[in-house]
Amino acid sequence: MQEQLWNIISAVKTQAPLVHNITNYVVMNNTANALLAAGASPVMAHAHPEVKDMVTIAGALVVNIGTLNEYWVESMRLAAQQAQTSQKPWVLDPVGAGATAYRNQVLEELLQYKPSVIRGNASEIMALVKTTSQTKGVDSTHQSQEALEAGLDLSASTGAVVCISGATDLIIYQNQYRSLSNGHPLMAKVTGMGCTATALIGACCAVYSKDFFTATLAAMALMGVAGEIAAEKASGPGTLQLHFLDALHGLNKEAFLSRMQFSGTT
Amino acid sequence: MQEQLWNIISAVKTQAPLVHNITNYVVMNNTANALLAAGASPVMAHAHPEVKDMVTIAGALVVNIGTLNEYWVESMRLAAQQAQTSQKPWVLDPVGAGATAYRNQVLEELLQYKPSVIRGNASEIMALVKTTSQTKGVDSTHQSQEALEAGLDLSASTGAVVCISGATDLIIYQNQYRSLSNGHPLMAKVTGMGCTATALIGACCAVYSKDFFTATLAAMALMGVAGEIAAEKASGPGTLQLHFLDALHGLNKEAFLSRMQFSGTT
Amino acid sequence: MQEQLWNIISAVKTQAPLVHNITNYVVMNNTANALLAAGASPVMAHAHPEVKDMVTIAGALVVNIGTLNEYWVESMRLAAQQAQTSQKPWVLDPVGAGATAYRNQVLEELLQYKPSVIRGNASEIMALVKTTSQTKGVDSTHQSQEALEAGLDLSASTGAVVCISGATDLIIYQNQYRSLSNGHPLMAKVTGMGCTATALIGACCAVYSKDFFTATLAAMALMGVAGEIAAEKASGPGTLQLHFLDALHGLNKEAFLSRMQFSGTT
Repeated sequence: MQEQLWNIISAVKTQAPLVHNITNYVVMNNTANALLAAGASPVMAHAHPEVKDMVTIAGALVVNIGTLNEYWVESMRLAAQQAQTSQKPWVLDPVGAGATAYRNQVLEELLQYKPSVIRGNASEIMALVKTTSQTKGVDSTHQSQEALEAGLDLSASTGAVVCISGATDLIIYQNQYRSLSNGHPLMAKVTGMGCTATALIGACCAVYSKDFFTATLAAMALMGVAGEIAAEKASGPGTLQLHFLDALHGLNKEAFLSRMQFSGTT
Repeated sequence: MQEQLWNIISAVKTQAPLVHNITNYVVMNNTANALLAAGASPVMAHAHPEVKDMVTIAGALVVNIGTLNEYWVESMRLAAQQAQTSQKPWVLDPVGAGATAYRNQVLEELLQYKPSVIRGNASEIMALVKTTSQTKGVDSTHQSQEALEAGLDLSASTGAVVCISGATDLIIYQNQYRSLSNGHPLMAKVTGMGCTATALIGACCAVYSKDFFTATLAAMALMGVAGEIAAEKASGPGTLQLHFLDALHGLNKEAFLSRMQFSGTT
Repeated sequence: MQEQLWNIISAVKTQAPLVHNITNYVVMNNTANALLAAGASPVMAHAHPEVKDMVTIAGALVVNIGTLNEYWVESMRLAAQQAQTSQKPWVLDPVGAGATAYRNQVLEELLQYKPSVIRGNASEIMALVKTTSQTKGVDSTHQSQEALEAGLDLSASTGAVVCISGATDLIIYQNQYRSLSNGHPLMAKVTGMGCTATALIGACCAVYSKDFFTATLAAMALMGVAGEIAAEKASGPGTLQLHFLDALHGLNKEAFLSRMQFSGTT
């Protein structure tokens, strides 16, 4: 299994898939740099007259609602629709789900275009389930087991792979899931690490479209291992960012296989 | 006094206030990272359908006009109005005041919503006074004493705490002011350091809403001390940025108290 | 010649020209920091009510279509028109030329305002020639010799200096060109290095408006030399970014002259 994940990570480097990002202003630079460091080719485009064309030439689409407005939401709709129509993998990052009614409404619309993968933190995934199934109560305390249940529900109702990232990452598809325990607490002090994870999932799905569950595992393992390596060299969240990009770029098979830690049921 | 400032800085770390930023594209990433490093929780949101909801759940609002346009100006109006109505602290950063007529007009409108704190450089503060009081001439040379007078006028006319940042920072409220002399010249070679200061003021006001003058002092002292520590480790403006975030994150009481330098009348 | 290039680079530091950027979200922070590190004063502004005013007070305009939409395209039109009218140097960065029909159409419009300099990678410059002259076929393989021909054509048809950046940079004006072979492959793994080059060209044109060809050479030599110095200190694309800014800031005449490598016909 670990070998397979490394093969996906390697395929990103050798194939350099074009990953089309409609993402938030805060993280665009990080996201582009992380995709480049991992070997992918990032493009950011949201203009209504071109967004479908860009999806068409891309290997995967990443939609992140972090700093949405009406224009961008329409861009996301157009792109997601095009991805669905042309059977391109697309990944949804529901940033701030549950924070405002507007975000919930936008997410409900976007889910109709059947994302391949949804990645969020525990509270976002729990908020999404509340959004898509009003009759199911969701506790506001963010116990991981509660998020797991929400993730299983969300995967069942949407048909998407669901990834709940945190100290432990849960990757869920229908009744199976795996957990990954790499990473470092300092990563939570750098903005956009979750968004970077989502973008890397896009890159891995682009080169391994036959199995989005395994592609998502590969991306999250890459995040966690690179984060660990970076944390060993960092003296805080500032230097962590840079060492993280260096680690993404320089990671080799031996380091990856020796560090990767996962468990869980399949 | 210094102990009190440290207590405010510590309260940001322990309370992790949600700071809602409507800010410019250039600095969004830095601002989010600085808030995270200082212990706060940043959110960026500007969509008209959600901006009031976001102010409602936030501990403070930060409005920065750096890359404004008509849509964003309306976002700022809605948010500032909501902050005023719900008595949330809000901080205004008048980036580029005086550079164009449009910026001056927008600032005049925003001042009607009574910001808690206004932070700018000397020329911006001087431009603001010209804006709000057409009959008062403002010299275009940026002597600090002239900016102090403008700051005193601005505080008197708006009721806001006014912070003039530079080699020496002046924090002004009505007839009193304090000056801080921490920091390093290299900070001026990193974009968005002023915007970061404004965001940290927001974080400190969120946890110390009973006294915005002292909260602003705390934020500016934190900036200056972290900047000094970072400059000692940096080999230029690039590495300064990262060491600055590390210093914000790792600062302890002893280092803060031993480095902080302020003076002025109260 | 090398002395002359250094004099232009020095003039940026001593004159601190205001460079007005209408650029993409991904690189705004980098661009601003690179301009600051090189000694220029960056401003980002795109609001229709102020964009012409900002061009008027700036020393040069930089237009980069990386993340365009209809509003931003109108900003670019207004700014480019004002630059042409007021004879301000302006530099066009045709990011993603050829990727979508929309980008091609926008570029065709912008070329009407006669940019002083156009900087792109080989495929963008080739796509631009196809755009501006539908009858001329352009091979999609990106051999440098093909890009040189496209660059010569583009310079002839637009009257602009054309810069094709890559492992070797070609700077072209009418029938003459020079090539620069500084730089490092790792620079291609950092997003926005090309955009930074374009912004530095703007800064150099602002202080040396009598000869945009030489100003462009100076900017590209500065990029390449600073990139080389940074690569020697970097352990990957993350740390490269920061060392690059440090190198831009700290570069001295001796290091510049000893490292600069150029050739080509004039």
